[in-house]
Amino acid sequence: MYVILVYDIGEKRVGKMLKHCRKYLNWIQNSVFEGEITEIKLKEMLAGAKKIIDEDNDSIIIFKSRQERWLAKEIIGIERMTTDNFL
Amino acid sequence: MYVILVYDIGEKRVGKMLKHCRKYLNWIQNSVFEGEITEIKLKEMLAGAKKIIDEDNDSIIIFKSRQERWLAKEIIGIERMTTDNFL
Repeated sequence: MYVILVYDIGEKRVGKMLKHCRKYLNWIQNSVFEGEITEIKLKEMLAGAKKIIDEDNDSIIIFKSRQERWLAKEIIGIERMTTDNFL
Repeated sequence: MYVILVYDIGEKRVGKMLKHCRKYLNWIQNSVFEGEITEIKLKEMLAGAKKIIDEDNDSIIIFKSRQERWLAKEIIGIERMTTDNFL
């Protein structure tokens, strides 16, 4: 399946979360990831994410589409994912 | 069609962008909007957004799905969209 993951989490936890999500998905913009992932790997990623975040203050939203081709993507402005200067 | 819009833009432009996008879509998380929108309204929104952002430094990504039901959504942690204390 194809997923888009967005998170809004406390500054202290961003670095760890970024490192964690990059093991599974592609970073495309500040706090935004996308990519193809299996159900098992998604469960694994989310279990790990839950250990990182403070569920009372942080927010993760995952959009799941059965296939990437059901999702058209348009970019306006610069395409961040080619740079590593983010946090 | 159903869209997810994420933006990563300069702090000075966030307020204006937020106000603009809220006219068309639902704010769900810091810099993230979603909602049902027509092709014409999407064009109108993006034309307005282009006037707000600095296309050399800012980034907007729009994911378009022909139907909301092709997109399953999962939230971990708190659901921000019920609060207005954001910028």
